[in-house]
Amino acid sequence: MLEELNILRQLLPSLPQNAGVVIGPGDDCAALAWTGGRVLLAAVDQVVGDVHYHRDATPPEAAGRKLMCRNLSDIAAMGGVPRWALLAVAAGGRGPDWVLAFCRGAAGAGARYGVAVVGGDLAGFPGEGEVASLTILGEVEEKKILLRGGAKPGDALYVTGTLGNSLASGHHLDFEPRLEEGKFLADNGFASAMLDVSDGLLLDAARLAEASRLRLRIDPGMLPLRAGATREGALSDGEDYELLFTVPAEQEARLVRNWKLTTKLTRIGVAEAGTPDVLDSSGKSLLSGGKCGYEH
Amino acid sequence: MLEELNILRQLLPSLPQNAGVVIGPGDDCAALAWTGGRVLLAAVDQVVGDVHYHRDATPPEAAGRKLMCRNLSDIAAMGGVPRWALLAVAAGGRGPDWVLAFCRGAAGAGARYGVAVVGGDLAGFPGEGEVASLTILGEVEEKKILLRGGAKPGDALYVTGTLGNSLASGHHLDFEPRLEEGKFLADNGFASAMLDVSDGLLLDAARLAEASRLRLRIDPGMLPLRAGATREGALSDGEDYELLFTVPAEQEARLVRNWKLTTKLTRIGVAEAGTPDVLDSSGKSLLSGGKCGYEH
Repeated sequence: MLEELNILRQLLPSLPQNAGVVIGPGDDCAALAWTGGRVLLAAVDQVVGDVHYHRDATPPEAAGRKLMCRNLSDIAAMGGVPRWALLAVAAGGRGPDWVLAFCRGAAGAGARYGVAVVGGDLAGFPGEGEVASLTILGEVEEKKILLRGGAKPGDALYVTGTLGNSLASGHHLDFEPRLEEGKFLADNGFASAMLDVSDGLLLDAARLAEASRLRLRIDPGMLPLRAGATREGALSDGEDYELLFTVPAEQEARLVRNWKLTTKLTRIGVAEAGTPDVLDSSGKSLLSGGKCGYEH
Repeated sequence: MLEELNILRQLLPSLPQNAGVVIGPGDDCAALAWTGGRVLLAAVDQVVGDVHYHRDATPPEAAGRKLMCRNLSDIAAMGGVPRWALLAVAAGGRGPDWVLAFCRGAAGAGARYGVAVVGGDLAGFPGEGEVASLTILGEVEEKKILLRGGAKPGDALYVTGTLGNSLASGHHLDFEPRLEEGKFLADNGFASAMLDVSDGLLLDAARLAEASRLRLRIDPGMLPLRAGATREGALSDGEDYELLFTVPAEQEARLVRNWKLTTKLTRIGVAEAGTPDVLDSSGKSLLSGGKCGYEH
């Protein structure tokens, strides 16, 4: 993780961009010039055997489904609708049946949300192991798009569902991407900023704080815990694939009144003016190094 | 290769599609509903260490450039213009500098053609090795798109550049994707079918024959050889990244007269009515199993 952040810090500023890029790298998805007020959303994510799932214990369908759903979660975090996917698999020491089942797991999970698999590539890997990547394409009305950087001081901080204990509970392999919830928030203008919680609440909250140039005060006592989760785990376990978002004060009552979805909705804190950071109720930084610019 | 074809034969018919898919999996790129007469082109391709390049001998910039250019070649084969790319890298046993150089190699190669890198993912790999995938997005006017299935009996068969000896000559790491050539052919309506030669002329010619439901007669004596290439190598070495295309008889004179590009243009055969196959001048099948439905 530390290495990835270091590489990205050097890489991102140097990546070529062009006039068609509405939102470049750094949010949950890129947004690309489309037409009729819509933008094309695009994101890529990977799963690696024995990093993102146990090679021996995980059925290939479940690993493929996880890959698709991780990407769908990124579309959800922009308030978008997923449309198309491209899938690349490199595998060594696996038979054709394994690869086929993996691809079918991914495709089947996408089909539930209307996603077409329109391209792919299969390659051999020398030695044991596999790496698969999926690029998801979707769309959203440009004026409804929900970025990380839109929070304002005074906004309330909310999260969907429950947090923590994702690995042991198996949630990381079998979760529902929050597409309906994300679209509901975007369509109704309830949220000011949003991202999905994939690397743990703290790290993702820090990203929202950093992008919005403010600090977040979270009440750890309010965190909605997944069965078996500790409060510390809810802050940092990761792989929750829930939505973390801010709600302007004048929208809060309307949001709560109109939230008819079965997914749990929890107010966990508030955004305040200040140097980007994530604080507990007493005002103490919850980030290991204090303030953002943290390294995990 | 055999395994990939077997898996694809089972997988492709089962992949979910949707109303926005203009051209689904199976051509060089998918084409997706856009607007104003344009379609969005999308393709994904991978490079794997010690499969697509020697891990020890290949500078990371060159491996990254190869990945980008392989994908650009797919856009060229549709007559399209590349716009955006998403890059995923999983690496084990490599330092941050290697990963950074790989990404910069890919991004730099794309920048030469106006491609923005708009998304990515970096992951660790347990053990030694690396897999990288790149999704390329581009566009083309829908009425100009060049598919594999558009050839008609009587069309002439042409190829750009030279063929064979790609690995030993280093061509596979340092080639110019035929974007200008592909767009020229599409813009002027000179070609009826096109694809890029990545798996060897024979295999790719067989794909064109199969998609167009006709047979191709190739004169091996006419093949434009890369330095050091044998005639057999020009038929089957692969990694040429040239364009193979058919030209209606009434367009041929105009094509040859208007071809001002410096890239070599060679007529290597003709399309004929008949069961899909690739024949030599004497009418003997050049495909190992005879006819298409071949296995390489």
